[in-house]
Amino acid sequence: MDPKTASNLSFVLNKTHDVAFVDRAPPALQSEHDVLVAVNYTGICGSDVHYYEHGAIGHYVVRSPMVLGHESAGTVVAAGSAVTSLKPGDRVALEPGYPCRRCGPCLGGHYNLCPDMRFAATPPHDGTLTGFWAAPADFCYALPDAVSLQEGALLEPLAVAVHIVRQAGVAPGQSVVVMGAGPVGLLCAAAAAAFGATTVVSVDIVASKLEFARTFGSTHAYLSRRVPAEENAASIRALAPSLRGGADAVIDASGAEPSIQAALHVVRHGGTYVQGGMGRDSITFPIMALCLKEVTAKGSFRYGAGDYRLALELVAAGKVQVKRLISEVVAFRDAEDAFKKVKQGEVIKILIAGPNEKVE
Amino acid sequence: MDPKTASNLSFVLNKTHDVAFVDRAPPALQSEHDVLVAVNYTGICGSDVHYYEHGAIGHYVVRSPMVLGHESAGTVVAAGSAVTSLKPGDRVALEPGYPCRRCGPCLGGHYNLCPDMRFAATPPHDGTLTGFWAAPADFCYALPDAVSLQEGALLEPLAVAVHIVRQAGVAPGQSVVVMGAGPVGLLCAAAAAAFGATTVVSVDIVASKLEFARTFGSTHAYLSRRVPAEENAASIRALAPSLRGGADAVIDASGAEPSIQAALHVVRHGGTYVQGGMGRDSITFPIMALCLKEVTAKGSFRYGAGDYRLALELVAAGKVQVKRLISEVVAFRDAEDAFKKVKQGEVIKILIAGPNEKVE
Amino acid sequence: MDPKTASNLSFVLNKTHDVAFVDRAPPALQSEHDVLVAVNYTGICGSDVHYYEHGAIGHYVVRSPMVLGHESAGTVVAAGSAVTSLKPGDRVALEPGYPCRRCGPCLGGHYNLCPDMRFAATPPHDGTLTGFWAAPADFCYALPDAVSLQEGALLEPLAVAVHIVRQAGVAPGQSVVVMGAGPVGLLCAAAAAAFGATTVVSVDIVASKLEFARTFGSTHAYLSRRVPAEENAASIRALAPSLRGGADAVIDASGAEPSIQAALHVVRHGGTYVQGGMGRDSITFPIMALCLKEVTAKGSFRYGAGDYRLALELVAAGKVQVKRLISEVVAFRDAEDAFKKVKQGEVIKILIAGPNEKVE
Amino acid sequence: MDPKTASNLSFVLNKTHDVAFVDRAPPALQSEHDVLVAVNYTGICGSDVHYYEHGAIGHYVVRSPMVLGHESAGTVVAAGSAVTSLKPGDRVALEPGYPCRRCGPCLGGHYNLCPDMRFAATPPHDGTLTGFWAAPADFCYALPDAVSLQEGALLEPLAVAVHIVRQAGVAPGQSVVVMGAGPVGLLCAAAAAAFGATTVVSVDIVASKLEFARTFGSTHAYLSRRVPAEENAASIRALAPSLRGGADAVIDASGAEPSIQAALHVVRHGGTYVQGGMGRDSITFPIMALCLKEVTAKGSFRYGAGDYRLALELVAAGKVQVKRLISEVVAFRDAEDAFKKVKQGEVIKILIAGPNEKVE
Repeated sequence: MDPKTASNLSFVLNKTHDVAFVDRAPPALQSEHDVLVAVNYTGICGSDVHYYEHGAIGHYVVRSPMVLGHESAGTVVAAGSAVTSLKPGDRVALEPGYPCRRCGPCLGGHYNLCPDMRFAATPPHDGTLTGFWAAPADFCYALPDAVSLQEGALLEPLAVAVHIVRQAGVAPGQSVVVMGAGPVGLLCAAAAAAFGATTVVSVDIVASKLEFARTFGSTHAYLSRRVPAEENAASIRALAPSLRGGADAVIDASGAEPSIQAALHVVRHGGTYVQGGMGRDSITFPIMALCLKEVTAKGSFRYGAGDYRLALELVAAGKVQVKRLISEVVAFRDAEDAFKKVKQGEVIKILIAGPNEKVE
Repeated sequence: MDPKTASNLSFVLNKTHDVAFVDRAPPALQSEHDVLVAVNYTGICGSDVHYYEHGAIGHYVVRSPMVLGHESAGTVVAAGSAVTSLKPGDRVALEPGYPCRRCGPCLGGHYNLCPDMRFAATPPHDGTLTGFWAAPADFCYALPDAVSLQEGALLEPLAVAVHIVRQAGVAPGQSVVVMGAGPVGLLCAAAAAAFGATTVVSVDIVASKLEFARTFGSTHAYLSRRVPAEENAASIRALAPSLRGGADAVIDASGAEPSIQAALHVVRHGGTYVQGGMGRDSITFPIMALCLKEVTAKGSFRYGAGDYRLALELVAAGKVQVKRLISEVVAFRDAEDAFKKVKQGEVIKILIAGPNEKVE
Repeated sequence: MDPKTASNLSFVLNKTHDVAFVDRAPPALQSEHDVLVAVNYTGICGSDVHYYEHGAIGHYVVRSPMVLGHESAGTVVAAGSAVTSLKPGDRVALEPGYPCRRCGPCLGGHYNLCPDMRFAATPPHDGTLTGFWAAPADFCYALPDAVSLQEGALLEPLAVAVHIVRQAGVAPGQSVVVMGAGPVGLLCAAAAAAFGATTVVSVDIVASKLEFARTFGSTHAYLSRRVPAEENAASIRALAPSLRGGADAVIDASGAEPSIQAALHVVRHGGTYVQGGMGRDSITFPIMALCLKEVTAKGSFRYGAGDYRLALELVAAGKVQVKRLISEVVAFRDAEDAFKKVKQGEVIKILIAGPNEKVE
Repeated sequence: MDPKTASNLSFVLNKTHDVAFVDRAPPALQSEHDVLVAVNYTGICGSDVHYYEHGAIGHYVVRSPMVLGHESAGTVVAAGSAVTSLKPGDRVALEPGYPCRRCGPCLGGHYNLCPDMRFAATPPHDGTLTGFWAAPADFCYALPDAVSLQEGALLEPLAVAVHIVRQAGVAPGQSVVVMGAGPVGLLCAAAAAAFGATTVVSVDIVASKLEFARTFGSTHAYLSRRVPAEENAASIRALAPSLRGGADAVIDASGAEPSIQAALHVVRHGGTYVQGGMGRDSITFPIMALCLKEVTAKGSFRYGAGDYRLALELVAAGKVQVKRLISEVVAFRDAEDAFKKVKQGEVIKILIAGPNEKVE
């Protein structure tokens, strides 16, 4: 595909609820280490929808038109002179955030904490719902034959889950509780199982999500009730003997205050709790449970060194069946409609085909 | 000293504000691994005073008369047949909590999390404000000549601080902020300096405590103001270039909500915050700061494997001058008066001599 | 079964090649925390055979008659007054080494390094090829219904493998090379796969062992040749793209000098090599490979906190099919014959039924 | 200083024992992130001398003329447009190896293991014994007023020592044995003390080096004898009670076979041994000591993320007095003479002034 002749139509958010399809000039390679990729598929993330709905997430505010989307896979169409790992025609998953490579966090192996990160569809940086995307070759992951481009697009949320599960230190034989059964929560449960956890509990307030979770890595499911957090925690601990003394690890993929409170009561003495989901800045938090039980609590933010690669490995090895999350694939022109479906919670994950991609 | 003839007078809390001096029978060795120790000095801890004032800490309730005290050093008077490390006459610091040695946490190296811990002066277990104390030899630490019995009594709060600083992963060259400049906060600051931290900030609301802190390991001090936590955090960050990007580690030794909130805003991306101080069960907590900065938060509870030994090593090597914390040493008969002084905040640390010990 | 009436026949090694069946008095419980167990099955380990053949391993010398055997499972027949976790009739796997619980390594969570360990069938301590065995309840693991007593006996070598794989830090998606495909090597490969390794290479000099390995967790097998270690290493690296830069972890379960040398050349920069197999005290070792590649090399000795429990969990969850290693089960009276078969390498793992157990 | 008019005289190794002073064109900045630095002082390292003597180290062979030197500090004379951390006139220590920033080790926080590292005075890359040096700004460390340029040049060997001591996991209160009392060994001992080790033993075969060591961080010194390694190890263990059970950490900074063998016998069960010194590719190694004691052995290669910064912090805080290592400072024209002095072992550390620097 030739970027000079093919479409570089982009799905642009002007401001809240105001989107447009704009034909932009295709991007130029910024370095001899870059590749140009024709985007084939892009998944929609909750954060994309949040920008569409609210024009901002925290202090990230959309002040000028911004292309949406950051969960993508595509096909290499050109490679810079220093690139040896990829060549035109290679199918790749696109890691969508590019760190400075020069700060303390970058040199120390924590590039996801780089203060100068350029992350797709985080203002002021454009996203991947476009025809062509330029990226450093080391942030593009060649897909083996066994992994499809649609699966490749789903490596992004799986990398989020892999990072969370790594932060949680999930190890073989452990018990893990995952609060929330949205896409990231489901992928955390599946990743925890792939890491060898033998008890995996999904918790949500929607029964149908829990039904899916039971088929996607979770050994148990718990429908959260409107009761004090300690009560939900006690009910979860009663689900299995391995949970009686508390869970080895608890992951919050919901961002909801009651879930986080229950997380602290479910985790065992000396266990780990990871905050992966986004929500209110401050909540009422059972701090003495953390103190007296010597809980290790960690935040998890996007993904870092090795996470995308492991996500790919888990899919290639058949350990996480990401394609089961795909509810629907729509044409590029139907992007806004897809956003509305995600907002209404009708789908688990919807993919938008690239502007040069045909949808059957 | 002969336990058959010497006093085993004990300072007993009957219920809130109701104490008595009771002459109890000296304890028997419960195992061939135990030693009997004549108690020379006992420090008063905030928890002792809390039981005296309130009769309970959380779900630990004084339901029958309980001997108070758990920060002690003494002299071995008898040793069980299997004891090879100690002999009568040895001066020892007494680690005051005895785990079951058989549960998961005990076998796994985390005996401070043992659910069957018998801890001195935690109901229903008696404490060390008494004449003689029986303990497993491996929980008694022989003091070298250079360490006095009074210093030995102070190993207990120093072990608390050592455990906190280890949980915080304090390493050479780091910047550490300690919220609270009470005895444990001061010892955390001094221990952090001994661990090689080159920037150590003490934070408190009492200026005189901060003055002392500046002479006890802290390189900087900050008088906390009644402003939003972010503002105090910003002021602390402005104290030194090494704090500009946030502190590597923040220790809360206060238990106060505003301090904990500030802790989360002071800690750097990827840094560590440890909750060491006790306070309200739940507080308003900036959870998104933890999540987005990938902070590692840990609780710290008492002390565990190697902590007492390292506390002793730090004192013996002159790296933490615990004796500077001793405000006063009083006779056993003045124990209640000492409790009142601690409650009124007139002293940093007060020691009570054992019932067989003369005070000059 | 009543220990007063049932057989306590024991298989005793007097000296090299001199064994006898002796009817000993059944053991007494040494503490209220102990249980008495009727031994159902015992596997034979290479170390048992080594004592039979040589009368010593290193500085452990059989100076007086010693009961052999330490890989056992049995049935509880009596429980001390303080035991709450087990009751008569419970089927248990027997962890066969009992630490002092009081030294630095024990309190620090490394009881396998206890200098006062009493380990079954390590002189001067008797082993488990006997009718009844007394043990602390916390070193006996209740088998769930899905795990048989024969599988229970195999938890011992699996615990060895689990400890090795944990020392190696094997994590999901990694590449692992295991030198040696004897019972422990095979179990290391299977455990590595259960830990999520996606490339697992078994290496041996016996083709038939490698054939078995391919069905037991290994994704690749390599028949070691009599060539310089670098050459074997290069051939192993050529087996898969994931090995091209070297393996993430290399485990030596052979103790053989050429294997250890190859291990250092196969492991990647920054990778881990674990020495699990026993062999000559000193070998020619490529020390600069360790230095320049920043390899982490670790020894692995027996098993420690949580290893037996995880071994049980892996079997119960169907992740390691230990029963496939059982070549034969023989009656107690055929014990010496069984030792000869192991020595001749005719079997992978042979079980000896207890003296009160019938063999079909 | 103006690179257009000042000297860029360089000290070039043509081949073994064949050096020349060549006036080269000053280097150009290769990126907007680079700075140009006028070199003030350069220390001579054993590897520089090795190239001078042998023309090669391992598979690194000097095939075309190469500028020597890599332990340098200098003064910024120009800064690229993207540089914000430095400005002309700033005094800086020069970290002399530049990684690719794009490979697995680089992104994972281990840039010292980068396969595409360009390291000064490692063939085919030129070194820093020259007038001007271009480097990425993030590999140049601004010296505070309290740190001189001569001290700045010594950050390089101190960074080597810091990396070794970090690999060894040296922690407060520990016992550390350092094999070798050359510059790196001395700095390891001093760094270990700065990390809080309370027992630090230097071991060498030259008594005068040990005398210096006793004043430079070591609490004990041991003159190694020509006896079996176990004997030297036993003698070292007898030096202090804290060594009786073995040292917590042993560092080999000698590369000598007898030292490495002794290291394995000196380290405690569960302790750590780090190979920092370079020597023969293969040696006779007590592998069973590693296995049975569960020793963690690690290689240490150059330095990585944070090491240079910590080295600077240790010097700035007065914790390691590197200037005491400087035996002599010579003029640039005397460079070859300086090499000969180092070879003859007459000096601890000799500095060569830059070609534009006057020597008093």
